[in-house]
Amino acid sequence: MNYRMIAYIIGQIVRVEGILMLPSFVVGLIYGEQVFAAFLIPIGLSVIAGTLLTLKKPADTSIFAKEGFVTVGLSWVLLSIIGGMPFVIDGCIPSPVDAFFETVSGFTTTGASILTDIEALGYGMLFWRSFTHWIGGMGVLVFVLAILPQADTRSVKLMHVMRAEVPGPTVGKLVSKIGRTARIMYGLYILLTFIEVVLLLVGGMPLFDSLVNSFGTAGTGGFAIKNVSIAYYDSAYMDYVIGIFMVLFGINFNLYYLIALGNILEVLKSEELRWYIGIVVGSTALIALDIYQIFGNVADSIRYAFFQVSSIITTTGYATYDFNTWPALSQIILVLLMFCGACAGSTGGGIKVGRIIILIKSGLREIKYMLHPRAVVPIRFEGKSADKDVVRGATSFLIVYIMMFTASVFFIEMIEECDLVTGFTAVAACINNVGPGLGDVGPAGNFAWLSDASTLILSFDMLAGRLEIFPIIMLFAPQTWKNH
Amino acid sequence: MNYRMIAYIIGQIVRVEGILMLPSFVVGLIYGEQVFAAFLIPIGLSVIAGTLLTLKKPADTSIFAKEGFVTVGLSWVLLSIIGGMPFVIDGCIPSPVDAFFETVSGFTTTGASILTDIEALGYGMLFWRSFTHWIGGMGVLVFVLAILPQADTRSVKLMHVMRAEVPGPTVGKLVSKIGRTARIMYGLYILLTFIEVVLLLVGGMPLFDSLVNSFGTAGTGGFAIKNVSIAYYDSAYMDYVIGIFMVLFGINFNLYYLIALGNILEVLKSEELRWYIGIVVGSTALIALDIYQIFGNVADSIRYAFFQVSSIITTTGYATYDFNTWPALSQIILVLLMFCGACAGSTGGGIKVGRIIILIKSGLREIKYMLHPRAVVPIRFEGKSADKDVVRGATSFLIVYIMMFTASVFFIEMIEECDLVTGFTAVAACINNVGPGLGDVGPAGNFAWLSDASTLILSFDMLAGRLEIFPIIMLFAPQTWKNH
Repeated sequence: MNYRMIAYIIGQIVRVEGILMLPSFVVGLIYGEQVFAAFLIPIGLSVIAGTLLTLKKPADTSIFAKEGFVTVGLSWVLLSIIGGMPFVIDGCIPSPVDAFFETVSGFTTTGASILTDIEALGYGMLFWRSFTHWIGGMGVLVFVLAILPQADTRSVKLMHVMRAEVPGPTVGKLVSKIGRTARIMYGLYILLTFIEVVLLLVGGMPLFDSLVNSFGTAGTGGFAIKNVSIAYYDSAYMDYVIGIFMVLFGINFNLYYLIALGNILEVLKSEELRWYIGIVVGSTALIALDIYQIFGNVADSIRYAFFQVSSIITTTGYATYDFNTWPALSQIILVLLMFCGACAGSTGGGIKVGRIIILIKSGLREIKYMLHPRAVVPIRFEGKSADKDVVRGATSFLIVYIMMFTASVFFIEMIEECDLVTGFTAVAACINNVGPGLGDVGPAGNFAWLSDASTLILSFDMLAGRLEIFPIIMLFAPQTWKNH
Repeated sequence: MNYRMIAYIIGQIVRVEGILMLPSFVVGLIYGEQVFAAFLIPIGLSVIAGTLLTLKKPADTSIFAKEGFVTVGLSWVLLSIIGGMPFVIDGCIPSPVDAFFETVSGFTTTGASILTDIEALGYGMLFWRSFTHWIGGMGVLVFVLAILPQADTRSVKLMHVMRAEVPGPTVGKLVSKIGRTARIMYGLYILLTFIEVVLLLVGGMPLFDSLVNSFGTAGTGGFAIKNVSIAYYDSAYMDYVIGIFMVLFGINFNLYYLIALGNILEVLKSEELRWYIGIVVGSTALIALDIYQIFGNVADSIRYAFFQVSSIITTTGYATYDFNTWPALSQIILVLLMFCGACAGSTGGGIKVGRIIILIKSGLREIKYMLHPRAVVPIRFEGKSADKDVVRGATSFLIVYIMMFTASVFFIEMIEECDLVTGFTAVAACINNVGPGLGDVGPAGNFAWLSDASTLILSFDMLAGRLEIFPIIMLFAPQTWKNH
């Protein structure tokens, strides 16, 4: 294990985090808040530590799969520890474990919160909390890759870091020209966020609110700055702007890249995109029918159904209504969407639409295979036949995902003895990076009541979900730390 | 598709079912009940239909995978339709859909019931209801194979029928000498049932009760003849006898075959058996600790914990306590055991311990594989390396199982709008052939309140679970019925 190179990369990431805290510090100052200690201590700490770790570039810069996973896993844990310091120093989240959870929830773009009164926080703290979503959105390392000089764009070494970072079964064109592509993606990410901010401003939302709500949308995170989430604004216009942008940020960024290259036709052919849009439309229609009894008119039924569907399938977690009170069919659809998740290569979490398509097709293939044992039935995905590794990748992800999910539910129930819906959806909401679940962790509830042990388990579920599970599991595998 | 051969085999099976109804008829007569019409009409019908279908043996007796699956799927559906006729004619279950559900529940050894007052049934009906468990237990076709003359023991053709019938990932030694082995197994099955009957009689249980409760244990079915299930007898001795026999019937019958051959050492080496016993002991200990607060003494806590664990992991479904009222940890353990199920090659349902072991090992292998991409890491199961097909079989089963499970929960919630725990565990209890779930379908509830549509969906879930899913799905696949 090349520990020196791991430390060197983590050092650079930590230093960048320090710099990324500055805007939140400035926001606090603008609003005249006492944020000096809260921000300057962690900023100073991360810049100094980061500089010390990167003083000398290691002679051996080689990184293999193992180092890549360890770097990614450790850096997310470390970023969350440092990122939680402002909350602890400020005193708004006194418990370090809770602050860790809240920051993990931010960086992993989950949006699950241990806060019972969000509105009690200062502007600086609220800005930092939502800004972690925005940073986490495109993956800290994609960001680092795009701006750090040592990111050798032709090197396959960094692919290992990338593989652990980019969500979904296929990295596709993204890695082919990694540096340039990352910069273009990042530009698109900023552009889309900017358009959303403008549209929210046009609708009359205050600038501060427009910014933080757009951060939460872009990262498909879901931290709101009001206790009742987006319901606070009570505006069909805002609901549709945020709803549509959530759907947009749930689309594979490779497709935006193709649009930027003028390749619209290929975008329309995307199988994953068509399924994704189909699921959004179908779920919205079913839920709208189901909740018509509550609202009594078509416009409101569609508005609330669409917002909640787009919020949950993209794993954002914003709420405009307490869907805990909706009928069972709507609830089960939302729970299924939590697992489904958005497109691969987006900022959304969950299992991912692409992976679900591959799994369903491989299931159907088994049925054909049973009928005609000697037939060769290839799985076609995105217009070409998926190779063995793609199918194997999807099934092995599913198995490890189920193992992690089952173990988490078991331990949460052992520790908390909460009702089954709460325990099951708490884990589902965290491992899929959604945010709210059902029962006591529903849109009107929070994660404050959990013990420290459960808070840590769910924190690691969020990290595992965000990093496609393996980098986090590996941190706990003894073999990872054996030198051979 | 060789329709004539399919009809020929099904004809033989149907005729056998008619004969198997005779004991129940006699029991009814002994107790002086009006059971002439209820039994003699279906008996006559099945003997006549069976005889007509088997008048002439087809010239072409070849059977391939497709025909095998279709034969198995159709025969179970048909057996359940005919087997439900006594209930409808007798009037104790007036609705044919409900009678179909109850009989499917019997043959698939599920034990889920639509009856609200079991004790209102006559002895003849109760006997037939429990006897379906016993018939279903070893699989109707194993039975048919063991006694029907045309079962060519050296033929691989019948392996296709067998493959769909014998639960679990490996058929192992069972198929090598199919006819002789099946007879030995059947002998062991009768012997174990007989021992249980004697032990229950010794404990003071009436003969009728001892017989039907042993049928329910042997098939790991779970139909009781009292409204409060086994709790009626309120005896630690009965609880332990039935509890231990449930565990015994959840063991792979190949192992009894090995014991019969004097090969005890090989039995002790069985990896699946060790895991199975370990899970039973571990779950009993955890639940006993968890429910100690209810009972206040160690003996009762262990007694009720052990009975419920053995009842659920073997997917029998007998109850001595309403575990709906137990703490959440106990409930989640029982729900997990529902999915786990018993050993492959036993009368139990669920995913099966052996398959779970293979899935967990393949999950762990992926982690190793991520660390060392070029390493070749074989999966070892039962002391030898599992070949690709075994791993592929387990994963493809998992995928199709999840698809079927998800679709069923979705439709049940759409039709019934029941609470999520009820909907989720109703499907879990049926597809895993357990019987009771939680919520409204818990040990103190039943399936009577479901609409006909849900009753049919759950009936097919039970059939799918019992027949390792594929034969039932194939009945609905258009490709199955294309002639090519």
